[in-house]
Amino acid sequence: MNYKNFPMVPRVIFGRGSFNQINDVLAPKRKSINAPFIFLIDDVFRGNPWLTSRIELAYDDKIIFIPTKEEPKTEQIDTLVEEIILQAKERPSGIIGIGGGTVLDIAKAVAIMITNSGEAKDYQGWDLVKNPAIYHVGIPTISGTGAEVSRTTVLTGPEKKLGINSDFTPFDQVILDSELTKDVPKEQWFYTGMDCYIHCIESLTGTFLNEFSKSYGEKAFELCKQIFLDDTLSKRDSQEKLMMASWHGGMSIAYSQVGVAHALSYGLAFLLGIKHGIGNCIVFDHLEDFYPEGVALFKKMKAKHDIELPQGICANLSDNDFNTMIKVALGLEPLWENALGKNWQNIATPERLRSLYEKM
Amino acid sequence: MNYKNFPMVPRVIFGRGSFNQINDVLAPKRKSINAPFIFLIDDVFRGNPWLTSRIELAYDDKIIFIPTKEEPKTEQIDTLVEEIILQAKERPSGIIGIGGGTVLDIAKAVAIMITNSGEAKDYQGWDLVKNPAIYHVGIPTISGTGAEVSRTTVLTGPEKKLGINSDFTPFDQVILDSELTKDVPKEQWFYTGMDCYIHCIESLTGTFLNEFSKSYGEKAFELCKQIFLDDTLSKRDSQEKLMMASWHGGMSIAYSQVGVAHALSYGLAFLLGIKHGIGNCIVFDHLEDFYPEGVALFKKMKAKHDIELPQGICANLSDNDFNTMIKVALGLEPLWENALGKNWQNIATPERLRSLYEKM
Repeated sequence: MNYKNFPMVPRVIFGRGSFNQINDVLAPKRKSINAPFIFLIDDVFRGNPWLTSRIELAYDDKIIFIPTKEEPKTEQIDTLVEEIILQAKERPSGIIGIGGGTVLDIAKAVAIMITNSGEAKDYQGWDLVKNPAIYHVGIPTISGTGAEVSRTTVLTGPEKKLGINSDFTPFDQVILDSELTKDVPKEQWFYTGMDCYIHCIESLTGTFLNEFSKSYGEKAFELCKQIFLDDTLSKRDSQEKLMMASWHGGMSIAYSQVGVAHALSYGLAFLLGIKHGIGNCIVFDHLEDFYPEGVALFKKMKAKHDIELPQGICANLSDNDFNTMIKVALGLEPLWENALGKNWQNIATPERLRSLYEKM
Repeated sequence: MNYKNFPMVPRVIFGRGSFNQINDVLAPKRKSINAPFIFLIDDVFRGNPWLTSRIELAYDDKIIFIPTKEEPKTEQIDTLVEEIILQAKERPSGIIGIGGGTVLDIAKAVAIMITNSGEAKDYQGWDLVKNPAIYHVGIPTISGTGAEVSRTTVLTGPEKKLGINSDFTPFDQVILDSELTKDVPKEQWFYTGMDCYIHCIESLTGTFLNEFSKSYGEKAFELCKQIFLDDTLSKRDSQEKLMMASWHGGMSIAYSQVGVAHALSYGLAFLLGIKHGIGNCIVFDHLEDFYPEGVALFKKMKAKHDIELPQGICANLSDNDFNTMIKVALGLEPLWENALGKNWQNIATPERLRSLYEKM
């Protein structure tokens, strides 16, 4: 029997306004005046001095704003890495991702690809990364994905949507400042929060569950219920709790895995470019056969916050389209095994997946 | 405002039987054939091949059995470090602590003192350590203290009982194998488990509490209630849950602090050599004015498990003795400030402490 030696984020700052400490955190990590820090920032913060003015750029340090309308692509990583390497006199001192799951995953992938040759798509899978990444820092500005603690960075490549799962993926430093999440629009807040909620359901009902994952998952689940069903929380408390729920939810899948919702959602993302948070919600809404209690509670949360999910997104798809999505989804074997056990292929048939996709 | 940049254990293995992976974990960390691994093992495992035969000693690797009748002393650290340095041809590859809080704290302190000159007592306090410790691994064989995740190693020196609190203190690797706790005697199980329970109460009611500490503390508290009040758990589940409770309880005091029970218990330990777990219980039993609900629940747990605490341990003490304990206890300012706020000195007077000690 072989248990995973799980890498944890070795440094974490938690606190309202702690983003102000970013320059002090980075200073001792600067390798030379020719080795810049590269800040990858969600472009929603472009022209927002409340955030950007607190970053003290020195020498060749650089901010690159990252568009987040689409899921991160392996090609996008390759382009960013090329741009960074061509412009820097020396290998950068570090990559700092400031944003939601998309930006955090891009920051992790860029930090890996700076020290590993080839293309990002070559590393989609489990433990394919050879060399340690450069120093990388994650600063979430929206909570739920767990990208701040996970050992994956999920990318869409030419052939699949799949993470670069490796011991070198997790951040070296995370700053959890809930104030950075204060302006997230309601829909986005709900979809991304539900990513955390769905992590809990998939982890807690999965066959891979152990007491480590369980204790983290139960706490994250309980926090989600408070955040999305309890009216008495202050805005600040709710933001801080969601930040911790995302953290614990991410820790919960360390030893466990996600499940059916994530597998099907990856199919939607690959074919239709549907973003992860909303994609998970669209899928989860139809999974009462797999997660009856979890889906019932999800519907309650959705109603409470007046969330209307898109309908009929698969209405005009061809057989080929369905087959593409089904292939992507069924390729995620560990997710299915976690959800349904060793004989998952008897349950998760292509026909069953097709009928689920047809409902969406 | 300045938030702590908290160091977390960067690698963790969780699983029943995961101790079997110890040799695989250590192999890549060996610096040379002259740089041994030093295993510090609770001497309760002396002559116990079930545990020791699984450690593959190579080259100059060495097991040192550690007596755990007494709390760890600064002098003991200095002696161990001298012995290790004199016998090793090169600086050791790592220190592996296998035991309860005493052994884990000794392992952490030895790893620090191998790279820092002077005596262990010089480093008792906050952030006095200058150089990174050598690689050190923690493997708990009893659960509750949180020593496996904390940034302290609590030592009794000539003048005080106080931790070496530093960013270099936490383990580089932890292995959480609940099977190692299977033979802990009932009283020891209770006392050490209550250390975790008391961490939760002190953290959750403290003025330093934030949402990070709260979420960990609440989970640990909930697990403690299951473990110590619910009869339906299997032995294995109970052991695994206590291992996670200890972990989460330790994480909870990362940003928070302990409180009145720990401060008074340090006084008992310093003067009378009373060990930490039982000392905490003796003290906590009399703290209903400070922690009414926590103490009520503690008494329920104590009754349920037929635990008889020693009585009258302070019956024959002199004024000098009382003053010594009071001085040690009141010297722990952050603990009092966490428990009672900035004006703690108005509440925690020497007279009040004396009357509490007199009841014990």
